[in-house]
Amino acid sequence: MPADLLSPAELEARLRDVGARRYHSLHPFQIRLQSGQCSRTEVEAWALNRYLYQACIPQKDAQILARMENADDRRAWRQRIVDHDGEHEGEGGIAKWLKLTDDLGLDRETVTSGRLALPATKFAVTSYISFVRDRPLTEAVASSLTELFSPSVIKVRSEGMLANYDYVTPETLAYFNKRPVQAKRDSDFALAYVTEHARTRAEQDAVIAALEFKCSMLWTMLDALEHAYIYAKPWPDAFHAEDGAARQAAE
Amino acid sequence: MPADLLSPAELEARLRDVGARRYHSLHPFQIRLQSGQCSRTEVEAWALNRYLYQACIPQKDAQILARMENADDRRAWRQRIVDHDGEHEGEGGIAKWLKLTDDLGLDRETVTSGRLALPATKFAVTSYISFVRDRPLTEAVASSLTELFSPSVIKVRSEGMLANYDYVTPETLAYFNKRPVQAKRDSDFALAYVTEHARTRAEQDAVIAALEFKCSMLWTMLDALEHAYIYAKPWPDAFHAEDGAARQAAE
Repeated sequence: MPADLLSPAELEARLRDVGARRYHSLHPFQIRLQSGQCSRTEVEAWALNRYLYQACIPQKDAQILARMENADDRRAWRQRIVDHDGEHEGEGGIAKWLKLTDDLGLDRETVTSGRLALPATKFAVTSYISFVRDRPLTEAVASSLTELFSPSVIKVRSEGMLANYDYVTPETLAYFNKRPVQAKRDSDFALAYVTEHARTRAEQDAVIAALEFKCSMLWTMLDALEHAYIYAKPWPDAFHAEDGAARQAAE
Repeated sequence: MPADLLSPAELEARLRDVGARRYHSLHPFQIRLQSGQCSRTEVEAWALNRYLYQACIPQKDAQILARMENADDRRAWRQRIVDHDGEHEGEGGIAKWLKLTDDLGLDRETVTSGRLALPATKFAVTSYISFVRDRPLTEAVASSLTELFSPSVIKVRSEGMLANYDYVTPETLAYFNKRPVQAKRDSDFALAYVTEHARTRAEQDAVIAALEFKCSMLWTMLDALEHAYIYAKPWPDAFHAEDGAARQAAE
């Protein structure tokens, strides 16, 4: 074993440290969202933009599935696609995200077409898909390890949104109900996978960098929302207040 | 000819209208840069981030070159790669951009590695490369048509930067000297190409959308600079004031 190789416990500690320093639970927009300070338009813009991230997850996972040479690995990984696409129309994580955008009063075609999403959101999603397709498979798997950190942020965000926005109900946030259990199962698998397959210190460092990349992608999506809807203006063709509840209230 | 097909003059007018509404000459950061309101750190961050865009241009053009089936087209298009890569080391547009970052006191390895660039810049560049690789060739060519608009912005920006920043000399901005003539030649070719190859209204609309995509990419890079260096904070691993002249001044 190379002298500089991290032990499994050391590698896990380094990965958890990435989350402690870089996960989007630390982002000002996330804190604003869960503490009730977001306007209705900001909540709508968040849900509409994040839909593109949610919708890309099965495609991202299919890229990884297509590169796995071992049937055991593929059997485990394909469950992620089932979780997000469901067994039937109207089931699965993407459909549950549309329940959220439905309850916010957003038009389904507007959401699913992505035509009012911020360009920055689209670039982040494109880059995520490119990363898992073009980088070594171990790094692609490692980029999913934000699921090590998601259960805690889901609880805080869901409780905060329910307490602070009267238009948000438990049914609105149904997407998040199953995610902590799924994320625990998925991150257990991915952590074991990268621990087994990253066999040099350079590969271990690349695994850590892959998780930093993923954190930067989630962080940058919130940067773009914060810039467009709080500090400056959205790209002219993107979602504006009058595309959401503000329009209905004015009518 | 389909009744709804745009004439060549109508198509060109629609393309020029995209520039009038969406080109980054309208972006607040661009106006700040050319009017002398940017701090030294903001100018450095602009040059360091935009390097990644400059550096991707020959790769972008090679993706297009690789898909052209006609030798006449390839002979015309390959000149773009020569312009940016030069005939010899130290020549061409990328080398001239490094003259700019050199004069700003930025370390070459820091610039060329991209390690201090904003994640949003990297995502925009990745998405530009993906666009020209994955979309129909006519749309890939159309995405270069921002060169219809660049000569005017180059003049305003160069004159403004020379007048307002005492650390910027004509040599610092040498990159921009040849660009107006090159951009005119290149956009003449690209405009003729898309006019000839977009033969349905749907293809013409896709050409217009490709130019809007490219404008959104240039705009979003400036959004990210504005957010990181004016309104909020840069991603922790990205360029900070102390990575530039502010460090040298403090030493």
